[in-house]
Amino acid sequence: MPDLARVVSEIAEEMRQRPDRGKVATYIPELAHVDPGAFGLVVIDNEGNVAAGGDADMPFSIQSISKVFTLTLALGKAGDRLWARVGREPSGSAFNSIVQLEHERGIPRNPFINAGAIAVTDLILSGHQPREALGEILRFMQFIADDSTITIDEGVAASEKRTGFRNIALANYMKSFGVLDNPVDYTLGVYFHHCAIAMTCRQLAMAGRFLAHHGRNPATGLPIVQPERARRINAIMLTCGHYDGSGEFAYRVGLPGKSGVGGGILAVAPGKASIAVWSPGLDESGNSHLGRIALEALTKRMGWSIFAA
Amino acid sequence: MPDLARVVSEIAEEMRQRPDRGKVATYIPELAHVDPGAFGLVVIDNEGNVAAGGDADMPFSIQSISKVFTLTLALGKAGDRLWARVGREPSGSAFNSIVQLEHERGIPRNPFINAGAIAVTDLILSGHQPREALGEILRFMQFIADDSTITIDEGVAASEKRTGFRNIALANYMKSFGVLDNPVDYTLGVYFHHCAIAMTCRQLAMAGRFLAHHGRNPATGLPIVQPERARRINAIMLTCGHYDGSGEFAYRVGLPGKSGVGGGILAVAPGKASIAVWSPGLDESGNSHLGRIALEALTKRMGWSIFAA
Amino acid sequence: MPDLARVVSEIAEEMRQRPDRGKVATYIPELAHVDPGAFGLVVIDNEGNVAAGGDADMPFSIQSISKVFTLTLALGKAGDRLWARVGREPSGSAFNSIVQLEHERGIPRNPFINAGAIAVTDLILSGHQPREALGEILRFMQFIADDSTITIDEGVAASEKRTGFRNIALANYMKSFGVLDNPVDYTLGVYFHHCAIAMTCRQLAMAGRFLAHHGRNPATGLPIVQPERARRINAIMLTCGHYDGSGEFAYRVGLPGKSGVGGGILAVAPGKASIAVWSPGLDESGNSHLGRIALEALTKRMGWSIFAA
Amino acid sequence: MPDLARVVSEIAEEMRQRPDRGKVATYIPELAHVDPGAFGLVVIDNEGNVAAGGDADMPFSIQSISKVFTLTLALGKAGDRLWARVGREPSGSAFNSIVQLEHERGIPRNPFINAGAIAVTDLILSGHQPREALGEILRFMQFIADDSTITIDEGVAASEKRTGFRNIALANYMKSFGVLDNPVDYTLGVYFHHCAIAMTCRQLAMAGRFLAHHGRNPATGLPIVQPERARRINAIMLTCGHYDGSGEFAYRVGLPGKSGVGGGILAVAPGKASIAVWSPGLDESGNSHLGRIALEALTKRMGWSIFAA
Repeated sequence: MPDLARVVSEIAEEMRQRPDRGKVATYIPELAHVDPGAFGLVVIDNEGNVAAGGDADMPFSIQSISKVFTLTLALGKAGDRLWARVGREPSGSAFNSIVQLEHERGIPRNPFINAGAIAVTDLILSGHQPREALGEILRFMQFIADDSTITIDEGVAASEKRTGFRNIALANYMKSFGVLDNPVDYTLGVYFHHCAIAMTCRQLAMAGRFLAHHGRNPATGLPIVQPERARRINAIMLTCGHYDGSGEFAYRVGLPGKSGVGGGILAVAPGKASIAVWSPGLDESGNSHLGRIALEALTKRMGWSIFAA
Repeated sequence: MPDLARVVSEIAEEMRQRPDRGKVATYIPELAHVDPGAFGLVVIDNEGNVAAGGDADMPFSIQSISKVFTLTLALGKAGDRLWARVGREPSGSAFNSIVQLEHERGIPRNPFINAGAIAVTDLILSGHQPREALGEILRFMQFIADDSTITIDEGVAASEKRTGFRNIALANYMKSFGVLDNPVDYTLGVYFHHCAIAMTCRQLAMAGRFLAHHGRNPATGLPIVQPERARRINAIMLTCGHYDGSGEFAYRVGLPGKSGVGGGILAVAPGKASIAVWSPGLDESGNSHLGRIALEALTKRMGWSIFAA
Repeated sequence: MPDLARVVSEIAEEMRQRPDRGKVATYIPELAHVDPGAFGLVVIDNEGNVAAGGDADMPFSIQSISKVFTLTLALGKAGDRLWARVGREPSGSAFNSIVQLEHERGIPRNPFINAGAIAVTDLILSGHQPREALGEILRFMQFIADDSTITIDEGVAASEKRTGFRNIALANYMKSFGVLDNPVDYTLGVYFHHCAIAMTCRQLAMAGRFLAHHGRNPATGLPIVQPERARRINAIMLTCGHYDGSGEFAYRVGLPGKSGVGGGILAVAPGKASIAVWSPGLDESGNSHLGRIALEALTKRMGWSIFAA
Repeated sequence: MPDLARVVSEIAEEMRQRPDRGKVATYIPELAHVDPGAFGLVVIDNEGNVAAGGDADMPFSIQSISKVFTLTLALGKAGDRLWARVGREPSGSAFNSIVQLEHERGIPRNPFINAGAIAVTDLILSGHQPREALGEILRFMQFIADDSTITIDEGVAASEKRTGFRNIALANYMKSFGVLDNPVDYTLGVYFHHCAIAMTCRQLAMAGRFLAHHGRNPATGLPIVQPERARRINAIMLTCGHYDGSGEFAYRVGLPGKSGVGGGILAVAPGKASIAVWSPGLDESGNSHLGRIALEALTKRMGWSIFAA
């Protein structure tokens, strides 16, 4: 077994030197200001060992990675009722596509495309005030990451609200089919805010531990979700976690993972480790370019692919 | 660790008693004659232990399961050139959909939908006579299954040729974009025949061993493919192996798998076992109804899900 | 030449007796209250003769028929610049489909589907306050109909605003592609209001006269639009005026026409007459059931089809 | 009323001098050999006056224009039963698109896209030998054009048969839905041959006379089809005759028309004249570039638009 700490610092060094860094997302001004040279990687294994490399403690906008945690929370509240509102099949289309929604009468393909995540947020909201729902999501993040300093970047949230016409379209479209229960503004308000949570790689890897450890916090042994549920969330991350690049990520990296346009990726080596990587430059599918390459190197060197174990 | 032999025979017994058996495919007469009560399950672990239950030695038409083996063969011949002809993303649509082909100029989404498998067959053919290509495929199947008695059911092949208008449409459509090199009749002739290979669960589980064992025959240690290639084929099986039910299969079963309309499924527990199950009744996505349920029970009892290991 | 007045009253009588009346639109409460037995027909020929039958003076919500007049107005303001924002091809899909918008980057197919009409309204608004734009539209309607009593049904407008999620989705979707200049709320406010204009068949037939008379008011001889523009608006009405039932309308009626979900249809017999018909029950394509049948009878008896003249 | 003969020769002269000539179709070698400088225009009015300009007597491949005549013939044989096999709505997509077929279970949108015309040909064939059906089509063309010298260009037909993969795909796709009755090879054989009929502008204008004259041969007064049927065929030409450029053709030219990739267009001024134009260079929608421009000039100068009459 190779030494995890050494592998992580080698990869961080290799990534720092690469000239190809993808393109930083510009669709909201706040994201565009990020340093394209940034790179961070943190791995926390199930024994609690932490290996960190690069900008491991620099906060970034987790964006769509938050969808993993809202899905977890919504399943805890609504159970399998959730699956009446959203499917769990890969979409075969871009993260913000609306075409499939029309053909399938407003039911999003899976909880990780934007439409699906909005439907999940609507379930969490279910009659509460947006502020309450948002507080619940944030406290859940702080709880699973053992870190009460995690916050929302209000500038990013406001910026998304101002320019998120496509998400407003998706939400109203679902509303027209009766798939959302709450006022569209409420649901989108919560959605834009939970996407604007800022975390470091270290915090994100902490938050992902329960998925690598049968649903439990490996430090305390306390259950976050049932083992079966952790397994199933991992399955959805594998098939749907990278939009129209999910097949490619499975093919190259071989781990369940969820990306965000902020350049972060949360990956899970089931039974072994929780992994967070961040590099703001994106590839054509909107996933972190160096993030994916770093994860490919990591699973290869550690022998962690779920397809070979 | 539960006893594999006992788990397998328990599941076989449970399945035999279930009243819900799905619907046997009727689109070609030969497939429609199969006994809907049939059920077989064979698991071969990497130590060579064989656990068999039910109709383990009754041959059935492997149909699309053959696509796993033609992909393996084509990758051996063409290497990564293959990926210029076919993608590796989930399709988000039915096994025989033609819509995506138009939007993506004749390049099929992945090698496991019909269009993609036809493109793969065309690569194997590459200038040879259909008879030669077919012989090569059959010999490869016999070789990896250590069984020279495996044959093609000519009645099934002839029937598909006579009624396979949709596959003829797909092939000609790709041909119009220049994605196929050989005469359409040649490519389809080979395709219809390799789908008509008849195997038992025992033979099929034997043939799948290399995917569970880092690309090697676990009995002889001889390499069939590179470890990385085995891993990657497993990844494609996980994301694309059950058409528009791939997400569901990953969610419930948690193993790479490939189904066929004959009612068979080949599943792989990487590092652990090769699994073949057969029950001719299909669910709405065209995958074996009891086959999937049996695999869900198997992975649960054995703790084999790749998302929890 | 048959006697127009007699033909009109015969048709009105025949329609009154028919048991098949289609289904009244229920998607907004205000429209659902309408009497399904209502039927009105008014024809005004280019000599100024008015033939009226049935409920010719009962006001109804003109809904999408207003799109003919906003198109006329927008062409007057923006000229052919308008065609950079909206196409002029039949859509081959439903009035509120969003699929095509994604494939064609936010540019609606034609000015008569909802998305296209919203884009046209945005052009009329162009920097003004919604109240001003709406006043301009209403005054234009009053002017061409020679009737200053035409008003907006505020109840209908408010109801659409409250429940028009699909239109909100379409508008935000276009906004995300930069196809709308004004705040979405402004544009939709004007759109919902001009769709809520209430008119009688008599008023509507008056308003359509310029399209039947080379762009001029036949009573005063004053030009409303250039002859070429009137011709072209008629052409768009013919190919796109009935959503996915446009081919059927051309096939059966053979006149340029525009329908609304309130059950009205404005039809134009170029060089001959302006025609308004109203019956609130709709067919499957969302067009007035008896309205279309009445127009088919009218053109047949009068020999007015543009495909035979 | 302007002098028709002078207008026609002026337009022919103007077109001869234009530098923009579109792009000659190259998808079959035989069509690619045509002189891009060719231009012909023939107008035959209902009094029998013939005005000819340019290459009026040079034969060209009529291609999809033949669909007007096979539709006429099939309606004569099958009557309204035909509409169970093919719709009459504009398609909103390209001439050879297969997407809509999947969504609407093999029923083509209208008889003028390739799929629809193949379904129409299948109805004409209905159990006969291809040779007989083809003979019937050719004799019908000769009859309505009063010209027994019209023939099929066997080189073009053979070339289409060899390279028409997309049409083979469309036909097999429909066959898979049971929309075609005859062997696919038979139907396509007839289809490829009737598209390969060669005609001059003079012959084509002769053949189109019945559509401009209430279904009758204006020279003899003999009925070809009922007046209502002529009117309805004109309506379909108007809404569907130029594929995804039908709206544009209606907007600019304002006449029912049908184009072919050979560069010909048959247009009908109902009650006035039959018009054939030919120039081999095509625009982006696959319609004759100069042909459309010449028709626009013709209808403008003669005042023949059906939207203004």
